[in-house]
Amino acid sequence: MPEFQRPRGTRDFGPEEMARRRFVEVKMRETARLFGFGEVMTPTFESTELFVARSGEGIVDELYAFEDKGNRKISLRPELTASVMRFYVNEMQSLPKPVKIFYFGNCFRYERPQAGRYREFFQLGAELIGAPSIESDAEVIALALATLKNLGLEDVAVRIGHLGVLNKFIKDLKIPENTEKEARKLVDKRDFEVLRIILDGAQANDEATARLIELVSLEGEEANSRAREEAGSDKSFGYLTNLLDRLKAYGFENCQLDFGVARGLDYYTGMVFEIDAPSLGAEKQICGGGAYTLADLFGGQEVNSTGYAFGFDRIMLALENSGVNVPSQNLEVYILPIGDAAKTVSIGILSELRNAGISADMDLMGRNMSKAMKYANNIGAENVILIGEKELADDSVTIRNMKSGDQKKCPKNKIKDYL
Amino acid sequence: MPEFQRPRGTRDFGPEEMARRRFVEVKMRETARLFGFGEVMTPTFESTELFVARSGEGIVDELYAFEDKGNRKISLRPELTASVMRFYVNEMQSLPKPVKIFYFGNCFRYERPQAGRYREFFQLGAELIGAPSIESDAEVIALALATLKNLGLEDVAVRIGHLGVLNKFIKDLKIPENTEKEARKLVDKRDFEVLRIILDGAQANDEATARLIELVSLEGEEANSRAREEAGSDKSFGYLTNLLDRLKAYGFENCQLDFGVARGLDYYTGMVFEIDAPSLGAEKQICGGGAYTLADLFGGQEVNSTGYAFGFDRIMLALENSGVNVPSQNLEVYILPIGDAAKTVSIGILSELRNAGISADMDLMGRNMSKAMKYANNIGAENVILIGEKELADDSVTIRNMKSGDQKKCPKNKIKDYL
Repeated sequence: MPEFQRPRGTRDFGPEEMARRRFVEVKMRETARLFGFGEVMTPTFESTELFVARSGEGIVDELYAFEDKGNRKISLRPELTASVMRFYVNEMQSLPKPVKIFYFGNCFRYERPQAGRYREFFQLGAELIGAPSIESDAEVIALALATLKNLGLEDVAVRIGHLGVLNKFIKDLKIPENTEKEARKLVDKRDFEVLRIILDGAQANDEATARLIELVSLEGEEANSRAREEAGSDKSFGYLTNLLDRLKAYGFENCQLDFGVARGLDYYTGMVFEIDAPSLGAEKQICGGGAYTLADLFGGQEVNSTGYAFGFDRIMLALENSGVNVPSQNLEVYILPIGDAAKTVSIGILSELRNAGISADMDLMGRNMSKAMKYANNIGAENVILIGEKELADDSVTIRNMKSGDQKKCPKNKIKDYL
Repeated sequence: MPEFQRPRGTRDFGPEEMARRRFVEVKMRETARLFGFGEVMTPTFESTELFVARSGEGIVDELYAFEDKGNRKISLRPELTASVMRFYVNEMQSLPKPVKIFYFGNCFRYERPQAGRYREFFQLGAELIGAPSIESDAEVIALALATLKNLGLEDVAVRIGHLGVLNKFIKDLKIPENTEKEARKLVDKRDFEVLRIILDGAQANDEATARLIELVSLEGEEANSRAREEAGSDKSFGYLTNLLDRLKAYGFENCQLDFGVARGLDYYTGMVFEIDAPSLGAEKQICGGGAYTLADLFGGQEVNSTGYAFGFDRIMLALENSGVNVPSQNLEVYILPIGDAAKTVSIGILSELRNAGISADMDLMGRNMSKAMKYANNIGAENVILIGEKELADDSVTIRNMKSGDQKKCPKNKIKDYL
């Protein structure tokens, strides 16, 4: 028989990596719970039309698509917002508002595999549905930032924009709608050189072009100051300064505006934001979100919503790059029975330790002392318990601390105290 | 826009159900960790041939199958053992033995949906690879039973068989190989009437037929006694009594033999076991497993292995049917600012509580007192914190315990002590 290989662009995760991933997943879930968000889960595949409704026909080429037994077209989900909003429209519209939900799951992208981009990847996201915008936007950005803070990922930058600001400056250009769309994309990519060429070609108003490029080039405190200056005369600017004040009340003082954040998708309505982890280099974005009305796109009533999605795999990478310590889960006790008579006693001790919440394993291979010590060391066991004839005779065990090398005898019924 | 529906045979899980499912998942993971098993994760889809190698060509009709961009045939996984053993063969063969791994994930079955059977369902399983059989078998069954015990699911019955015993009795029938296979299936289904008809038709030895049916009809203590009687003269019976003794040392005294357990699949080599939750009625099996050599089927070296898989969805149902309490995760604090001035202070308190690990939410809807109280009650909040003009004036808050109705004022900086 030949060896089988896993499909291209996918990954296998071993025990060490899985322990790290689950640790991060649990921390993220715990933060959402502290914020009063409840977890939901939807199927791994949905009708293809659902994803088209959210992202446009262009998405179909990137889907893993197949047909149902009833010849319905279904696809593996490329992201989770569409599924979650479909669930909301089907079953949660009549719940008291706001509806605060989060989700964690795998998504699929049918594209040529490249460095750091996988065909199966993981997203964690949240949606706050049905509350006024400013309250929702602040609460949702605060959840995203608190999640990263609780993970110990300090080296991040949030950039908050507003489509009301951006669109007003783009409208002033007096260019065709198609070119507007293209301009928005170039702004989002911060490719101002090409933007200028395109706008010249479309005979955009020169002054408006200069104003747009000046605006979207503002970074950090410059952008914040501009919003404060204009807050009185323009409600989108005013909205953003209010949002900054609210985030400050949440304890997040370093939020920065960036009027060039445009996000790719048409359904965003106001505030949009992105979070970067600079340690990731060129592909530094780890989170994107904003305010939207999406429920009506899926047949529901129009309702204010704010949401975001984290790229879970990028967060794992950012944690690694930033040297954030994710605790490992070493085996606490490895038991080595010496001789057959010690085996039954060892199993009893093994079970007692496990019942007490102490992770424990036992030699199943009949290894001799030196090989067993090597194995225990290899798997990172913290202590080895030896049970031989002498120990059997006086109801004791010998405990060896693998780090210090200290070895001591202890009564069989006092092991937990000695560990 | 029409509403979109989720695909047939799939489920959406809301916050309450997800909290229950995650609680059970975490308990199961924790038990595996205590036993020294490490978690692995494999892709959601694999090459179709992998599943055919494990389960035979018949599996193809039940797979969600599609083609890769490289025209490779791939399928959503119908179970997890094949993927995990593929991963083992690819990357873990050279690790020191034993390799102890577990997994939790979703699987897919392309069949007509029926009550309690879903097209997307969840499995949790474990494999112990590379240790001698008796040690592996005992450790693996002990893990399965400890998992259920830690979940509080006491009403379960484990039935342990051995293919060595069963096959010896079937060989004595002197019937064609095909009929042997059919007989094994009927034994597994406990359909002894049809079994008798088939064996008569195949002119099986009458005495051997009677002996087989008598053997596989033994239940509980009867079967255990039979094994003890025959242990001296037959090594498979002897193996099973040794296994019972070992499981007793682990603290599991109520394990029962059942020589009719055959499992469906050809790769099992010796011990096989199943666990039932009687509260589930006709579809009561929640776990199946046994000893196998599967690595060689996937191109690896032959190696002793023992493993099992739990049907996660059935376990959730069994917990519910047995009235096992899965703790809910109520919101601990709901904050109601009364008037605009109280909002910023409320956000500060909200963040402080969340930072201290207390789940907290705040009115985002501008509700009045009576509506907010109704909402807090509705979402199961344990306490409501009121902050109005009076409270602002003297840096206090009013805390209402929603269960008792008690209401008391407390200084703003002492809230955690008062909760």
